[in-house]
Amino acid sequence: MDEFGLIEEFFTRPAHRPEVVLGIGDDAALLALAGAADTLAVTTDTLVEGVHFSRSAPAFDVGYKALAVNVSDLAAMGARPLAFFLNLALPAADAEWLAGFRDGLFALADAVGLDLIGGDTVRGPLAVTITALGTVAPGAALRRDGARPGDRVYVSGLLGEAALGFLLRGGRLSLPSQFQESVLARLDRPWPRIHEGQALVGIASAAIDISDGLVADLGHLLKASGVGARLNIRRLPLSDAYAAARPAVGYDPALVFGDDYELCFTVPPARVQALAGLASRLPCGVRDIGEIVAGAGLTLHDGEGVYTPSRAGYNHFDDPGSL
Amino acid sequence: MDEFGLIEEFFTRPAHRPEVVLGIGDDAALLALAGAADTLAVTTDTLVEGVHFSRSAPAFDVGYKALAVNVSDLAAMGARPLAFFLNLALPAADAEWLAGFRDGLFALADAVGLDLIGGDTVRGPLAVTITALGTVAPGAALRRDGARPGDRVYVSGLLGEAALGFLLRGGRLSLPSQFQESVLARLDRPWPRIHEGQALVGIASAAIDISDGLVADLGHLLKASGVGARLNIRRLPLSDAYAAARPAVGYDPALVFGDDYELCFTVPPARVQALAGLASRLPCGVRDIGEIVAGAGLTLHDGEGVYTPSRAGYNHFDDPGSL
Repeated sequence: MDEFGLIEEFFTRPAHRPEVVLGIGDDAALLALAGAADTLAVTTDTLVEGVHFSRSAPAFDVGYKALAVNVSDLAAMGARPLAFFLNLALPAADAEWLAGFRDGLFALADAVGLDLIGGDTVRGPLAVTITALGTVAPGAALRRDGARPGDRVYVSGLLGEAALGFLLRGGRLSLPSQFQESVLARLDRPWPRIHEGQALVGIASAAIDISDGLVADLGHLLKASGVGARLNIRRLPLSDAYAAARPAVGYDPALVFGDDYELCFTVPPARVQALAGLASRLPCGVRDIGEIVAGAGLTLHDGEGVYTPSRAGYNHFDDPGSL
Repeated sequence: MDEFGLIEEFFTRPAHRPEVVLGIGDDAALLALAGAADTLAVTTDTLVEGVHFSRSAPAFDVGYKALAVNVSDLAAMGARPLAFFLNLALPAADAEWLAGFRDGLFALADAVGLDLIGGDTVRGPLAVTITALGTVAPGAALRRDGARPGDRVYVSGLLGEAALGFLLRGGRLSLPSQFQESVLARLDRPWPRIHEGQALVGIASAAIDISDGLVADLGHLLKASGVGARLNIRRLPLSDAYAAARPAVGYDPALVFGDDYELCFTVPPARVQALAGLASRLPCGVRDIGEIVAGAGLTLHDGEGVYTPSRAGYNHFDDPGSL
């Protein structure tokens, strides 16, 4: 946790309104309006130029990714996308940049069914804040605090792809040419697991999206649930591209980099069979990487001994996390 | 409208979700969730250091005002405050600044009954985005598009106080000492008309809050309603402080400066009597300043002839308005 992580605690107070089902501290807040058939899930994230994306990033990618990180939070709650708000601070009204940004933003909005219904545009250093709203059946949201000892730990899709893209772009990694496009796409235009999140409702006991890296984000889930976990790093789902890079980079990019926007979730033993039956609704695939244990903390092993990542979090963009 | 005003149109598309009662273009968006007893009102605004507040502004005032501008939007919809989200970009985690900011933020949140339920803290140039949620009975929200010819035009409280505070602080105005504190307080810590907005539900045919100045904001209401208006500037509600300043500043600060966070609303003739009966729920007072007319545009007169403000909008902080 960096200095900004402490700010969360600084603003955390108990909520008083009866409508507040869940406040600060999960992927989204939950509100139950009187009489409503569904609970509202609301999440918000800010991306700042020079911190979360570079000055040279294509406008399309900035628009796409600013929405994607919020959709990923809805996915982690098992919520269905409803609508979103855009707050855009811009140093100047550059029509070409705005057109690219809008195209990226709406490409994802249309793909997941989100209406843009408001926001604010102001002069200022380039920054994008998006607030996304979704719905989930009462009591069905996937929270961080439901994991219990004995539950299996899963991740969706592939880990470390965005890290490889980041290292490749920075000239810190060479990759065979056939792998380059896919890892850069995973960094720039991650596809949030919105359908998978909804499919996991009633199956997963807890879930979180992997924005800050598996170690950090699973750590949040463990802390919220009051449990520990034991993972086998040889079971991490890695691509052929990753296999090609692994001699050079080891396991750390898959463990501590972040920006993967996969889901990490837990499933009680009694529901593991039901998860297997969901395969058609989980086209990205899910992988059992370990188990929840009593106690606290995360233990990584490679089947022979304990494995220690070189650092607890990459913090490559100095991403501070959410309230 | 400055260059940023055009951006609103750039992002405006029809909403598709049946839950969306009202999208981009009012003080707040309105969402009706299936079965819900109330409609949800959602608004969001961003304040940037150096644009919307100065580097020397006390942290308390920044926190207070960032929330106040959003609460004022809820007021303009007639909504009851429910909860809010805070996105804070900070160049560094300064504990003293954060404590002041938090105190200002929570002072207003507690006064109006808003729970802080989420957000994001990131490294970046100082900027504050707040998203506020409120509730209003179905069909009861005060929108911008309900004014009809013959309706009376009202404003709450006093106009131009924030402008005097701004001019005073900048050394561009001298005021008798007994007036100085109140106009600076109106600039730094405006009290949003949240109770008045709720009282006007069922009475007002249209409403907007005065953030960009009476001329600009009433202009938005007229455009949305497809009508014009005729106002008598001699009926503008002005304080004793303003009376002292008027020989130097004329009427423009009350007409085109903004930052007043009063409500401007219209009332059909048949409900003017009912408005009079509400006086106890409108302690700030309301003033009839003119009438809605057929056609388009705003005409100002002083009882003798047409009055033309020296400029259509102060744009003193380069405030671009909302999506």
